[in-house]
Amino acid sequence: MAEPLVATYLLTRPAAEAARAARSVAVEQTVEVPESLITPDIEARVVGRVLSVEPAGRADLHRARICYDAALSGFELPRLLNLVYGNVSLQNGIRLVDLDLPASFLARFKGPNYGIAGLRRLLKVEGRPLLATALKPNGAPTSEFEALAGDFARGGGDLLKDDQNLCDADVPAFAERVRRVQAAVSEANAKTGRNTLYCPILCGPAHELEDRVGAVLRAGAKGVLAPPFLLGLDTVRLLAEKHGLLVMAHPSFTGTFFSDRAHGMTPGLLLGTLFRLAGCDVSIFPNPGGRFGFTAEECADLSARLTGPLGRLAPAFPAPAGGMTYERLPDMARDYGTDCVFLVGGGLLAHSKSVYDGTRAFLDAIGGLVK
Amino acid sequence: MAEPLVATYLLTRPAAEAARAARSVAVEQTVEVPESLITPDIEARVVGRVLSVEPAGRADLHRARICYDAALSGFELPRLLNLVYGNVSLQNGIRLVDLDLPASFLARFKGPNYGIAGLRRLLKVEGRPLLATALKPNGAPTSEFEALAGDFARGGGDLLKDDQNLCDADVPAFAERVRRVQAAVSEANAKTGRNTLYCPILCGPAHELEDRVGAVLRAGAKGVLAPPFLLGLDTVRLLAEKHGLLVMAHPSFTGTFFSDRAHGMTPGLLLGTLFRLAGCDVSIFPNPGGRFGFTAEECADLSARLTGPLGRLAPAFPAPAGGMTYERLPDMARDYGTDCVFLVGGGLLAHSKSVYDGTRAFLDAIGGLVK
Repeated sequence: MAEPLVATYLLTRPAAEAARAARSVAVEQTVEVPESLITPDIEARVVGRVLSVEPAGRADLHRARICYDAALSGFELPRLLNLVYGNVSLQNGIRLVDLDLPASFLARFKGPNYGIAGLRRLLKVEGRPLLATALKPNGAPTSEFEALAGDFARGGGDLLKDDQNLCDADVPAFAERVRRVQAAVSEANAKTGRNTLYCPILCGPAHELEDRVGAVLRAGAKGVLAPPFLLGLDTVRLLAEKHGLLVMAHPSFTGTFFSDRAHGMTPGLLLGTLFRLAGCDVSIFPNPGGRFGFTAEECADLSARLTGPLGRLAPAFPAPAGGMTYERLPDMARDYGTDCVFLVGGGLLAHSKSVYDGTRAFLDAIGGLVK
Repeated sequence: MAEPLVATYLLTRPAAEAARAARSVAVEQTVEVPESLITPDIEARVVGRVLSVEPAGRADLHRARICYDAALSGFELPRLLNLVYGNVSLQNGIRLVDLDLPASFLARFKGPNYGIAGLRRLLKVEGRPLLATALKPNGAPTSEFEALAGDFARGGGDLLKDDQNLCDADVPAFAERVRRVQAAVSEANAKTGRNTLYCPILCGPAHELEDRVGAVLRAGAKGVLAPPFLLGLDTVRLLAEKHGLLVMAHPSFTGTFFSDRAHGMTPGLLLGTLFRLAGCDVSIFPNPGGRFGFTAEECADLSARLTGPLGRLAPAFPAPAGGMTYERLPDMARDYGTDCVFLVGGGLLAHSKSVYDGTRAFLDAIGGLVK
């Protein structure tokens, strides 16, 4: 096996079944034939190799490390997903918890166009977390979004994104709304001398995505809010790479990978490692204590996978979100440190009489909390 | 609300919490703001409306029907997924079990290019289930696949597909392998006077998909095996529509939607309704009793959603698979009836001394069992 790609699974199986279950994953994910049809040649060249099966803290839980030939991933994302979790996703009690990707695999990926350092340079903001908000609520007139955008930018906010549910009637309506919101941001930027960035939602039928990206770039925006699991993970990778986009990734439609802790994937692997491979500069995820169920440990692992080493790929920003309020800021600053985007939607809108005041208050708190 | 689109969820919540949980889904999926920020205008125009919340057979289980304005789906797939299951996928105990899509939504979709009737015309096979097999095992030389393809076609098999894990070194290698396998099938067809069809795997990086489809069509094949959740559901829809492809859909990477019966979606909705909307002519899924965990009821629902009414979209073939053997054929014929593709991989390869004999045996059994 020329280039090993190692996947680690947690198997909910008792000791008596764990080794057989690990072998079954290795066969299922590579050749998918009865054992009797596996020749020594296919065994040596193609079948995944079980490196180890060890107890994982509970009698019915075992950790299995399986080594695949990286060539079976095609060195690209759709086939990587198929190789490490395609068929076994349809079974039970098999959770993918780690991936050790060889340098030859990582070298094929450009990764985030900006990453943490690039985004900080663009914003000219160092030494503190970034503040982001969303254009809400869905259904409000564009004039209201223009006002919100202007207030947030004048207040010194860093990243403004569309709410991911915004749904313009068609591409021209999308282009016009984006143009107006970006104009409001640019006007505020001209006054403040800062560079608040706007990321419109990139969602729609496959044949419209290029047109939508074109509309974003023509409006003068540099990036998009993209939901990789609605569009296709590699579709987002291609658009980011081709157009040099700043990409904020939205986790819409990914949740079934995380809800059953005995199956699926860890948030860190999917929203961290895989989204970063797809070129996401910022990965949005639900912070513990909000409306969603991620644990503090899962969020810490996710954050580490976005910011830690991954070949030569630039680190990306974790962006905890989901029911965040002013009162939560000290906890979040402690948990995530400086290289983090605090994404506050409804909490910012509801905090003060104006979005401008709310933005100032949140920024003061962020600047004061983290040195 | 001009055009209602009704989603039905099973909520794992006790009676005291069910109504509030249903309202919470309706808000989360449409406006995602605190209740205090919802104006009467936004409430009337945008927020999902809870139509009913009823006990669902267990004290902690309730069925909630929520009506959304179809315009919020953009009348397209990525936004439909976001609208009905985007954010709530990240919560717990919320299972999407039904979708009532308005005619205005369905009218935007071409659906399967062939469907059951079209595929039968192409094959000139009426009155019996179809027999399909896969080129296995991954790693075998092309000459072996040519022999297998020729044997299956000479034996009278209907649909031959690549195993979904086959991974050619690059597009030219893919094109060459597809050309050779299709030539073997065509040669056999010329002898038998039949029309066995070959569907090569369509998987790879986003920027190669058009080239790969081109290679398939140039080789003289009419269709592909496509994994919608690896490529993007709407990417498959677009490629099918643009090139008039016959599409066999593979369920790779969809399994986390089904493994936790309290969350996710039913197999019928995802592999049935949604895949048919994306233009899949055949939907492959794990039959009960094989290596995977679908129940007989789930498979019956899936089959009904593929073959039953859905606007003016052509019905599609259910293709139960996954550890099927000769001995299971009577059960499968009883469960699925005539309009079904029996996809037998390893079971066919292992059944007889030759694939030709195995194909004859399975076809005799199918022809004899269903009249």
